[in-house]
Amino acid sequence: MTKISEIGGERELIKRIQKKIKINSDEVILGIGDDAAIIKPSKNKIIVLTTDMMVENIHFSLSYYSAKQIGHKSAVSNISDIAAMGAVPKHMLISLAIPSSISAEFIDELYDGIISETGKHNINIIGGNITGAKIGSFTINIALLGETDREIRRSGAKPGEALMVTGDLGKSGAGLYILQNKTTISKTSTKSLKTSHLEPSHRLKESIVLKNTGKVTSMIDISDGLAKEAKEIAEASKVGIIIYKDKIPTSKATDELLKSIGKDTKESALYAGEDYELLFTAKEEDAKKIIAALKKYTGTKATVIGRITEETGIYIIDKNNKKEEIRKTGYDHFKENLFDYKR
Amino acid sequence: MTKISEIGGERELIKRIQKKIKINSDEVILGIGDDAAIIKPSKNKIIVLTTDMMVENIHFSLSYYSAKQIGHKSAVSNISDIAAMGAVPKHMLISLAIPSSISAEFIDELYDGIISETGKHNINIIGGNITGAKIGSFTINIALLGETDREIRRSGAKPGEALMVTGDLGKSGAGLYILQNKTTISKTSTKSLKTSHLEPSHRLKESIVLKNTGKVTSMIDISDGLAKEAKEIAEASKVGIIIYKDKIPTSKATDELLKSIGKDTKESALYAGEDYELLFTAKEEDAKKIIAALKKYTGTKATVIGRITEETGIYIIDKNNKKEEIRKTGYDHFKENLFDYKR
Repeated sequence: MTKISEIGGERELIKRIQKKIKINSDEVILGIGDDAAIIKPSKNKIIVLTTDMMVENIHFSLSYYSAKQIGHKSAVSNISDIAAMGAVPKHMLISLAIPSSISAEFIDELYDGIISETGKHNINIIGGNITGAKIGSFTINIALLGETDREIRRSGAKPGEALMVTGDLGKSGAGLYILQNKTTISKTSTKSLKTSHLEPSHRLKESIVLKNTGKVTSMIDISDGLAKEAKEIAEASKVGIIIYKDKIPTSKATDELLKSIGKDTKESALYAGEDYELLFTAKEEDAKKIIAALKKYTGTKATVIGRITEETGIYIIDKNNKKEEIRKTGYDHFKENLFDYKR
Repeated sequence: MTKISEIGGERELIKRIQKKIKINSDEVILGIGDDAAIIKPSKNKIIVLTTDMMVENIHFSLSYYSAKQIGHKSAVSNISDIAAMGAVPKHMLISLAIPSSISAEFIDELYDGIISETGKHNINIIGGNITGAKIGSFTINIALLGETDREIRRSGAKPGEALMVTGDLGKSGAGLYILQNKTTISKTSTKSLKTSHLEPSHRLKESIVLKNTGKVTSMIDISDGLAKEAKEIAEASKVGIIIYKDKIPTSKATDELLKSIGKDTKESALYAGEDYELLFTAKEEDAKKIIAALKKYTGTKATVIGRITEETGIYIIDKNNKKEEIRKTGYDHFKENLFDYKR
């Protein structure tokens, strides 16, 4: 382990990072190394901007996260927000607060994790900010700029439309439960759930397919649990939503864990976050075609899990047709946690 | 004091912030409230992007900073970076990590401080990210997007050119010294130095005048002390710099403090940061005209403090023509502090 002061401090750390970063784009006029970066926006595109902060012991613990996983996840959560708008991520700024317990190798690995995503999707790391501290929490903030010709908002859902979701829900929350409680279920399930939490995937290529259908009326990424994100769509669109409980897709591994701890597997999907799946709406008659297109071009499944209603509120219906209003929603940093684990 | 959990948590806090933010710009297609914000870039402009993180007990102490001052300073440091490129700030994203000791009123005041700058300069607050935590340091990260038709880089300085600086240097460092050591000098000087540290100004309107002269060859803002920023220009431009020690402008208040603690007032200018003045170069024959233009259009003074040389390295010459190479530079978060105070 090499202390950052040993390699020569802030300037040398920035030079070390710069060596890792290759920019192959004529859209970047000036990358790292001046007061600000300069980019050339594409013609006839609008610009989409998001930012996301991850703090040690709130979003991750260094006791089970590697530096590479933190970098990767931080990139994924921002890419997921850009994807949720139907946009393509382009340029990234990275701010770090680094306590003195963090080594130069940790920062190398953090950037390896970020670059594993930015490299794959031609995202340019164009700048950032580094702060050293004697004590405190390791903190990473990413700001990400994307482009699109037309965005998909949360606010376009209409009564009668179908609510759909990509992939499976609840797997990241289930993985976190295992990491924090050291619960043992089958080896394969344990491994797959841990990976879902530590190395989540975004749905960028899926979002491009969804946008290109021209049929998706609203979209959001699931970072804070299905219940909360459904509420976001409902409130922005001034509609209500009915969710079919038994249609919520969960993986066998999630089911195995939730059964072993005597909990309802659908609860993990409703209230646990960080799955980074896409929740979206379209006319009922378009749903099948959209799901087929997604499967064809990306291999990713999507499932109809609910219906948009004129009556506001978020309701859940079980297989016995019992309808219940969901009042509690997903994770809120300022309130008690609603799923039975901390994060 | 109202706890954030008492007003209803993260969602309600965001709504409360949204009420404070007015967007009067057709460049903002979508502000706060979706997965990402959307803006329309101006035609024929390039985009300038910067980000800056401020962490409690590293960049500020809540024992002498008000929430409003933290918000204001965080906005200023980002605006200063955009100004240093010769660009105009346009759109802002704000990320916060909020420990539970922070009240809803604190966040109100923080935004009042930010808005005192964004309002004045027509900068749109278009989004951000909020994280709550039981413990930890209050942290703010701002990402700021600006536009220009042509940038001024650090790398354009040529041998023979004059090195100039706006305003006075060392005043923020002197203010911090007073705040941390409770040194007493005259009332007026104490007040003015404290204000320089707690409520610094950027030089945005000055940077616009400087750019419009068409004569400025390189520019940087002084956030980490004159010595370090001069080195940045020198390295980027592949030149050397000679600084005339007795020409470095310092205020009477700074002189009074440094004399009272038995230190050289020019040291505070060389090694203490956060003055947010502009350091820039131009041909020797243009210097007078530039300084006159700045005075005429902004009322702000500028001073020739050095000369660009072919021979690399940063040297300082005193009035007895004693030339000395500056090896230590300004503040580095990872090394021991070079001025005799912590920050």
